[in-house]
Amino acid sequence: MLAEFDLIRRYFMSPQEAQATDGVALGCGDDATLLIPQSGQQLAVSVDTSVVNVHFPHDAPAHAVGHRALAVALSDLAAMGAVPRWCLMALTLDQRAFNDDAAAERWLSRYASGFHTLCQQHDTALVGGDVTSGELSIGVTVMGEVPTGLAMTRSGARPGDVVAVTGALGGGAGGLALWQQGERDLGHPLLQRYLLPQPRLGAGIVLRGLASAAMDVSDGLLADLAHLRAASGVGVDLIPDALPLVEGLVETLGHEQALTAALSGGDDYELLVTLPPDRVEEAAAQLAESGLALSVIGYCTQALGVTGVPAEGAMGWQHFRGGAR
Amino acid sequence: MLAEFDLIRRYFMSPQEAQATDGVALGCGDDATLLIPQSGQQLAVSVDTSVVNVHFPHDAPAHAVGHRALAVALSDLAAMGAVPRWCLMALTLDQRAFNDDAAAERWLSRYASGFHTLCQQHDTALVGGDVTSGELSIGVTVMGEVPTGLAMTRSGARPGDVVAVTGALGGGAGGLALWQQGERDLGHPLLQRYLLPQPRLGAGIVLRGLASAAMDVSDGLLADLAHLRAASGVGVDLIPDALPLVEGLVETLGHEQALTAALSGGDDYELLVTLPPDRVEEAAAQLAESGLALSVIGYCTQALGVTGVPAEGAMGWQHFRGGAR
Repeated sequence: MLAEFDLIRRYFMSPQEAQATDGVALGCGDDATLLIPQSGQQLAVSVDTSVVNVHFPHDAPAHAVGHRALAVALSDLAAMGAVPRWCLMALTLDQRAFNDDAAAERWLSRYASGFHTLCQQHDTALVGGDVTSGELSIGVTVMGEVPTGLAMTRSGARPGDVVAVTGALGGGAGGLALWQQGERDLGHPLLQRYLLPQPRLGAGIVLRGLASAAMDVSDGLLADLAHLRAASGVGVDLIPDALPLVEGLVETLGHEQALTAALSGGDDYELLVTLPPDRVEEAAAQLAESGLALSVIGYCTQALGVTGVPAEGAMGWQHFRGGAR
Repeated sequence: MLAEFDLIRRYFMSPQEAQATDGVALGCGDDATLLIPQSGQQLAVSVDTSVVNVHFPHDAPAHAVGHRALAVALSDLAAMGAVPRWCLMALTLDQRAFNDDAAAERWLSRYASGFHTLCQQHDTALVGGDVTSGELSIGVTVMGEVPTGLAMTRSGARPGDVVAVTGALGGGAGGLALWQQGERDLGHPLLQRYLLPQPRLGAGIVLRGLASAAMDVSDGLLADLAHLRAASGVGVDLIPDALPLVEGLVETLGHEQALTAALSGGDDYELLVTLPPDRVEEAAAQLAESGLALSVIGYCTQALGVTGVPAEGAMGWQHFRGGAR
């Protein structure tokens, strides 16, 4: 039988590591972690839960499950232009899903490796967590810092601003479709996007001085755009032909479904931003330095609503959609 | 069909409320919340997951589920002597457990009421969250503040210190037993303790200037004491006859089982502290002002290990205990 404390010790917690980390006064292993926020910074905090068979397939590779759970949470910090510093992981694990302890330990080791590797890539210290028994799910709380007053929000878009998106869209839905067709090669660009999304943290920091509003594309472009429009009080004229589609998406889904995936599929974890027109060139140039494209996909309008796409496409992805589970 | 965003808006999120709260620069509704930590304070952070049929019964009253999920998380802040400021709630909800939308909404409304009422009692702002679909579970991240250097930890106990506990023990295990026997009157002291535990936040602040070490009793007194002993490098001579038992515990379980519940039952959420002997009287007097008892239950020793109790009682409650689910 696995013991909770052993699990924590072996895979998730490293008090020495945490305590040697800048900004951590007391690491894992006590009732709470003690952190030292920097003065002059606001603390950006977000939580995301990833549930088996809702957010990822039950047979997804363990390292991808760990990576993805953290990536989707970090993506929210990217959208604010925050620098990630700390995270907590609440893992609920279904022991009955494993044949024996050895199988459980193999899974956990790979899961932890996926989680930790992404932590290290973004200088994020895992400073706490909880392990419990139940249906597999991972709740990740991320904490980042952003200089006071500089955070991007959803509410700053103005009529005349350009609407742009980083990277490429449709990978979440395209990857899911491909997985359901039996593809298991994680090297495939669509599966990369679906199972191993890269939070756009560097882009968020570049854009926070240039964008008027920002959010990440998690529920689907149109649904997310609806939140941004509502928060900013603007409309958007969208240019569907300008949507950057992930490599291999049209080949996998066909042209029409590819467009639907990009508009409504969700789980893309790109940044959706609005920019004053005179800043687009600089933003694109700065992002290009790290190999990330910035595509202009529309314009903010005074008239509310969305133009340029059929109205029936306007429903975003919902966790509670019928038949999802 | 319930829509995630509607759920959040209606029951959990109130951006205006959050933004009017001290220390919140940007409340719910954006990609992340922006908080303003106070200078001179350390940030105490902890996360706790409550899973149906593991941490609470599937037919527990909804308001108790909400209350309890927050209470167990706040209890960790109490153990540090931190003042709670903010929390995030990740709710995973199984729609299939409800006959119809109206039943789901009734449950949610009561759940939210239990959660919010406890928030208000402890000036804790719910500043973010996530709602998703799956087996019922609640992950609560709590954030509190404590003046730099004043937090209680598990590692400060010294030989000769007194071991003491607030309130009374055995309520978690006793309440569970009573619930399993069919008792449903939440006014019963044991069910109060089991389903509506009160985090000892006031006591934590009183004790942080007096105690040498502290933690909360969540896994069971002996298991928790083992963590404290290991962190501090001391042993403990326990006085079983001195354990304060919750009202009604002996009548419900009999004497022997009552003692086992107090020693190993867990889920009591009292504070377990060590104190230099000359501070016990002051600590007890200060806690008595708010009607809370402080009972001396043992002494810290140079020799490691626990004396005063049978060795076979030394196993604490484990989430992964056999047959728990």
